[in-house]
Amino acid sequence: MMKQPTSPSRSEFLSRRQFLSTGATFLTAVSVTTGAPHAEAEIKMPDSMLYPGVADEPYGTPSKHEEQVVRLVQGLTAKRTTTWSYSPIHRQRGIITPSGLHFGTHHSGIPDIKPDAHRLYVHGMTQKSLSFSVADLLRYPLTGNIRFLECSGNSWQQGAFAKPAAKTCAELYGLLSGSEWIGVPVRLLLSEAGIDPRASWVIAEGSDSGSLARSIPMSIMNNDAIVALYQNGERLRPAQGYPMRLLLPGIEGNMNIKWLRRLEVTDRPAFTKDESRAYTETLADGSIEGFSLYMGVKSVITHPSAGQVLPDRGYYEVSGLAWSGFGRIRSVEVSDDGGANWRTANLHEPVLDKALTRFSLPWKWTGQEVRLQSRATDERGNVQPGRADWRKVYHAGSVNHYNAIQTWLIDQRGTISNVF
Amino acid sequence: MMKQPTSPSRSEFLSRRQFLSTGATFLTAVSVTTGAPHAEAEIKMPDSMLYPGVADEPYGTPSKHEEQVVRLVQGLTAKRTTTWSYSPIHRQRGIITPSGLHFGTHHSGIPDIKPDAHRLYVHGMTQKSLSFSVADLLRYPLTGNIRFLECSGNSWQQGAFAKPAAKTCAELYGLLSGSEWIGVPVRLLLSEAGIDPRASWVIAEGSDSGSLARSIPMSIMNNDAIVALYQNGERLRPAQGYPMRLLLPGIEGNMNIKWLRRLEVTDRPAFTKDESRAYTETLADGSIEGFSLYMGVKSVITHPSAGQVLPDRGYYEVSGLAWSGFGRIRSVEVSDDGGANWRTANLHEPVLDKALTRFSLPWKWTGQEVRLQSRATDERGNVQPGRADWRKVYHAGSVNHYNAIQTWLIDQRGTISNVF
Repeated sequence: MMKQPTSPSRSEFLSRRQFLSTGATFLTAVSVTTGAPHAEAEIKMPDSMLYPGVADEPYGTPSKHEEQVVRLVQGLTAKRTTTWSYSPIHRQRGIITPSGLHFGTHHSGIPDIKPDAHRLYVHGMTQKSLSFSVADLLRYPLTGNIRFLECSGNSWQQGAFAKPAAKTCAELYGLLSGSEWIGVPVRLLLSEAGIDPRASWVIAEGSDSGSLARSIPMSIMNNDAIVALYQNGERLRPAQGYPMRLLLPGIEGNMNIKWLRRLEVTDRPAFTKDESRAYTETLADGSIEGFSLYMGVKSVITHPSAGQVLPDRGYYEVSGLAWSGFGRIRSVEVSDDGGANWRTANLHEPVLDKALTRFSLPWKWTGQEVRLQSRATDERGNVQPGRADWRKVYHAGSVNHYNAIQTWLIDQRGTISNVF
Repeated sequence: MMKQPTSPSRSEFLSRRQFLSTGATFLTAVSVTTGAPHAEAEIKMPDSMLYPGVADEPYGTPSKHEEQVVRLVQGLTAKRTTTWSYSPIHRQRGIITPSGLHFGTHHSGIPDIKPDAHRLYVHGMTQKSLSFSVADLLRYPLTGNIRFLECSGNSWQQGAFAKPAAKTCAELYGLLSGSEWIGVPVRLLLSEAGIDPRASWVIAEGSDSGSLARSIPMSIMNNDAIVALYQNGERLRPAQGYPMRLLLPGIEGNMNIKWLRRLEVTDRPAFTKDESRAYTETLADGSIEGFSLYMGVKSVITHPSAGQVLPDRGYYEVSGLAWSGFGRIRSVEVSDDGGANWRTANLHEPVLDKALTRFSLPWKWTGQEVRLQSRATDERGNVQPGRADWRKVYHAGSVNHYNAIQTWLIDQRGTISNVF
């Protein structure tokens, strides 16, 4: 075990200044100050310096030593094609999720669409019906930004179960990702077709065998909605809607229709199967909330988190992700005593509209049992609720739009688990 | 050919307002207004809706229909291991380069490094010599941002050749990429070791068989330099320095030492082979510039660009990338008459420090020969030079730090080529 020069009675968060001024004390204990190589001769050349390396590839791949960093694909059986691919967010740093690790919730598998044959139709209450090929869309102005996407059912276990599930951070929060999405503003395509002024909704349909379809208010389509063609600098991947998907910043994942083939302009919602039974929430008073649209302000500590173990006492950086469908994150507070005391975390640049925001705070663990929490506030003043407050709004067993404060319990052995 | 309702005598840039007000005229001509499907019945279900799709994968991959979007790997022969992997920047949208398409300049191939055995040594003019494992570094505070990386020799043909090379945009500008890089501040590691106040340089060495090493001023190490462990949300890939690399925002790519194994604190530069012969520039007066450090302000139009062909007249979005080693991009101007007249382009959010910045401007091509150019200015007021001005500073044949204005010639057939 490490030497503990000063042994405070309990764990504590450190300000940046505190950390830097006292840092050496903690960090030296962590870094391997061996017998210490004083001369260059002691710094042995590794084998990698003795032989030329291998040639570069046309398309690069992750290290073979990182093979375990993959999505957890759940739900696939011979009889059903609904799967959930959980992103390993406890392995992610920064605010970009690699496209290969982006979460996916699929109800009918991933269709193979030939891009040259694919068309997007804009029709319904319009002056003209239009069809757009990929090549057509690529002539339009392209716009977009870095955005989060979250499955409406992310963290569903926390709402559905009376007792906390023995799950990891990725299993509880991994239906969440951040990417740069670039495409054509929907409003331009609607404007091209000429919208009937009485129209107020647009029904978007995918080309999957489940024909996933959702009704989207016109106001959202005329705001920052895009028909996305690019994710993180390259064309969409099949699991993300190749060759095109709807991208509605801040809106529940399910409405961001993948393999988009149709935008039908109407004056009423369609009440598709995907928005009548599924993707609604039962509220505490028994009523049903549909078209819930924006994902609420939310945060989670990813480092450390359930599934990890603190190897010893001493310095750690508490780090996590915060996001809100309503705009930018204004602040994140963290607590290591279950919410009795809160400290303001550092927000890392860039802090973007409807994007994942990374927060962190230096922290010293003295080996006691602690309850780590984070609480986000967005630029509109929305504050992430406690679980009890969330359950005052949503009926017991509700599985969608869970955004309450997460508590990670760290026991004296350093084992971390999910608790309410 | 498309109908041309109003036929101006020459091509022109359009303001956002102009574009939106007259947009329908241009865009309808581009979109496929077929016989037009008026009823849903006419919008045929594609095959993809008839059968369930395939299951999701643990690690996602690009579409098989995008197999041609890869890096161009040049230079590999049986006798040498120096390669250049050019990123297909004419295929990229936004400011993030997918890690699999990130450029690479390799002098000794890509070493295979076992992460558990790898150590980073900090030694030299320090109070202590330290060694850090990957696990040690992951205990430290992690920071970083989205940054550009550019090979010092990017666009070398433009400086080296008296006549313009018949090359594509990617071949001329593809040693350039943008990524989110996250790691440990170098200043923290130096502080841990305790720097001798007389020290002013740090020599960084990689674990490749060429032992690529560069001398870096202490002021840069104490600013925003990091030992990067993550790129775009996942651990570094082998071609990018797995398990760790130096990341010096704004500084020429070669100094961002990959497979980093050693930081030696000194009071003078080492004049390694990588900074005595290579990676210096011959100036117009015959003197040699070494330690040129920051990449100058630069921009290039990627859409349209050499290697592409405009299929017909009408509306296009002129779009490109701008960047500066000295900070944020302040503005980008574009010209379609070889620099006689300039229009201010739109800068896309986010505009970040030492990162790629996307610019665009709507444009109408009437079929005449035009010369497209872009000219970037950074927040310090540095303005991208013309080629003649660049050559007043650098000797004919210089291959590094070329940042002059690029001219794409579009002939009457829509063919695009590189001209001076």
